[in-house]
Amino acid sequence: MNEENKLTPELIVELMDSRRIAELRAMTEDMQAEDIAELFAELPEAYYSRFFRILHKEIAAEVFAEMPSEEQEVLITAFSDAELKNVLDEMFYDDTVDMIEEMPANVVQRIIANSTPEDRRVINELLRYPADSAGGVMTTEYVRLKRDFTALQALAEIRRVGINKETIYTCYVTDNNRHLLGIVEVKDLLLSDGDRIVGDIMEENVISVQTLEDQETVAQTMSKYGLMALPVVDTENRLVGIVTIDDAVEILQDEAEEDFSKMAAITPNETPYLRTSPFSIWKSRFPWLALLMISATFTGIIISSFESALAKVVVLTAFIPMLMDTGGNSGAQASVTVIRSLSTGDLQLSDWLKVVWKEIRVALMCGVSLSVLAFGKVLLVDRLLMRNPDVTMYVAFAVAATLCLSVICAKVIGCSLPILARRVKLDPAVVASPFITTIVDAVSLLVYFGIARTLIPALR
Amino acid sequence: MNEENKLTPELIVELMDSRRIAELRAMTEDMQAEDIAELFAELPEAYYSRFFRILHKEIAAEVFAEMPSEEQEVLITAFSDAELKNVLDEMFYDDTVDMIEEMPANVVQRIIANSTPEDRRVINELLRYPADSAGGVMTTEYVRLKRDFTALQALAEIRRVGINKETIYTCYVTDNNRHLLGIVEVKDLLLSDGDRIVGDIMEENVISVQTLEDQETVAQTMSKYGLMALPVVDTENRLVGIVTIDDAVEILQDEAEEDFSKMAAITPNETPYLRTSPFSIWKSRFPWLALLMISATFTGIIISSFESALAKVVVLTAFIPMLMDTGGNSGAQASVTVIRSLSTGDLQLSDWLKVVWKEIRVALMCGVSLSVLAFGKVLLVDRLLMRNPDVTMYVAFAVAATLCLSVICAKVIGCSLPILARRVKLDPAVVASPFITTIVDAVSLLVYFGIARTLIPALR
Repeated sequence: MNEENKLTPELIVELMDSRRIAELRAMTEDMQAEDIAELFAELPEAYYSRFFRILHKEIAAEVFAEMPSEEQEVLITAFSDAELKNVLDEMFYDDTVDMIEEMPANVVQRIIANSTPEDRRVINELLRYPADSAGGVMTTEYVRLKRDFTALQALAEIRRVGINKETIYTCYVTDNNRHLLGIVEVKDLLLSDGDRIVGDIMEENVISVQTLEDQETVAQTMSKYGLMALPVVDTENRLVGIVTIDDAVEILQDEAEEDFSKMAAITPNETPYLRTSPFSIWKSRFPWLALLMISATFTGIIISSFESALAKVVVLTAFIPMLMDTGGNSGAQASVTVIRSLSTGDLQLSDWLKVVWKEIRVALMCGVSLSVLAFGKVLLVDRLLMRNPDVTMYVAFAVAATLCLSVICAKVIGCSLPILARRVKLDPAVVASPFITTIVDAVSLLVYFGIARTLIPALR
Repeated sequence: MNEENKLTPELIVELMDSRRIAELRAMTEDMQAEDIAELFAELPEAYYSRFFRILHKEIAAEVFAEMPSEEQEVLITAFSDAELKNVLDEMFYDDTVDMIEEMPANVVQRIIANSTPEDRRVINELLRYPADSAGGVMTTEYVRLKRDFTALQALAEIRRVGINKETIYTCYVTDNNRHLLGIVEVKDLLLSDGDRIVGDIMEENVISVQTLEDQETVAQTMSKYGLMALPVVDTENRLVGIVTIDDAVEILQDEAEEDFSKMAAITPNETPYLRTSPFSIWKSRFPWLALLMISATFTGIIISSFESALAKVVVLTAFIPMLMDTGGNSGAQASVTVIRSLSTGDLQLSDWLKVVWKEIRVALMCGVSLSVLAFGKVLLVDRLLMRNPDVTMYVAFAVAATLCLSVICAKVIGCSLPILARRVKLDPAVVASPFITTIVDAVSLLVYFGIARTLIPALR
């Protein structure tokens, strides 16, 4: 990765303005398509099509496929029909379909109009599947072999059809009705005798998914079994496409980022942070903050109804943040663990009893150890060190007992809510994570005031 | 994926106890190594070695490589030297090294004693690199070609050495001193004329990493450029190994899970949830809860010092949870976004000014919109609907103003802290995420009491 002579958006503008086009083209020659695509992010739109036209043909389509859809749209609008055709010809079907799904209707029409009839048929076929299903992420470009080919014939067939296929290293053996019979690795063809029959070399015990399978399951399957490509079949086990590892990696990363966003009460958004406008960021954050703020009305009501008690023993107020935060943190620990384990497939819904039983034991340990610590801390720091005579033994005991109970409640709520959400087919990360704190806050306060009323003489 | 006749740990025990070994072996025959490995998790340890010995030789080593290290250790202890040798022979070096890094010294000694001198040399070589560096995750098994080979000679060379290599689809062209000159895809060898020279087919503009590069950067590079394998070179550009895509996928997933744990104030742990004992879970959660609880002493002190004011206008207490939670949520939104963008490489440290400026604008929008909403909500719900005469216009205004200011502070702290942490080479996810809430709580309370004192006549 050479850092010297790095091409920057500023440099592109400078070179284009001073018409040093040959120099600019030379600088792009040794670059990777992904790095060129990144340059567009900070290039003024007026320079988009002029810079794109400078690129060598072989790399231009690759650069185009790597760009986010907003930038692709700018370019398509500037393209002549011939230019659009050139780019479309070089793109893989799955990338084209991903792009079409993001474009406004008039752009889609132009894309379809500039595709060959064969391309149009495949694209329409792929567009029928939901975007987040196996059918929606698969490509139809793979090498098909017959079971009675010899290894040499198979290699010849790969040579014949291979050049336009997204992957050639796993080939698929089908019968005349496209039923999937097995897979053959090019590796095994290369390493075996030339006259061995494909039917004898192929692996018949094939892992495949159906077209409507969720893309997350597809990616997890590929990651679990270490597959480079996964065949997608219809309900009659006819091969309709394959999902390649690069798409699986992207799916796994996107799904993890989505969970991060949801857990932080943000509407997921695929645009990189620096390219997102402050208004878009506001739109993805404000509704959640507002919802959570309104839902905090409950905690307000609980405190209001204990106002007279708080007025008598004001020192109780000082421990509210600590109790609420510890409860919230305890709940978040349990819920994030369970949400991620559900997402990665480590946990199944049927495990719910095991989860709750495990969390109850963890909660007991956490609750008891924290309350012992809190009891000591309140007496030592708040009473002795800070010389606050209002912090009586009763207060310390009420705080410790509340902590123990609310940690236990928090952990049980934190592990149950995601499972409940999944059971009623809601997204655990959206439903559970941001609201755990609100629910746990209310529970902690109720426990706190209940215990305080029972324990503290002045409140009885 | 056939669900009927599924082999379960209970069924293994039943079949072994009734000596129906042939039946058991037949059931494992069509299974994937990954699925067999999973069965060990819930199989009683007494059955481990007996069940393992039933497996066909070809799949046994694969099953072994897929198991977590605790289970591998149980098996190794039960293995004879000959059995251990058999398994080690079949394993890839990178898997062996991963295993050795987790084993106690006496087991490592047995492993080394049962390796060939050549294996021992390679293993020792690989063990020199930090476990989370490119050198620590790479394998030394790849196909090396000379630049003056013809395509046919190259394919013959692949056939000769290929059978034991982890990947053969990308071959590496080196000179006699192992300097990396270029890469050749088997695809290009297959699709080109047999007498073309490797030097003419190879891609010279190769992306590579150095041995000490962080594994996360390695995986991100592979994901960004869609690479199936990435060459690892020493400081003199001599090829020492390759990282394969399956390892990159694992690294990306592990790093994301680690961030999830850290953000939820949990010490990361690679063992799946259901296999982790409650005590281990307690150990990974309690220290953080305790630390955060103790750090909440600050908020307690702040509230204590305003005790007399709170005693006069008790209704102020009712809004503390709402203000703290909204501040905490706002800060978490900013910090999670920045932490993840730093992790995925979307953000660089040099972007810090852009980030802070963007967050200030988002914070202004969020702060103003939330405080307008809160002002209306406090007056409508708390004053009119709940008929609380203590909720005066002054109180509503104090709450709204605090909300606006604390949201702005929270977002600026939330985005700056991770960047600061990274700048001083600390882990943003550990340092920033769990503590944002504590810091923001304290800030919100200070702002709240300050504004209340200024605004509310009874407190002036």
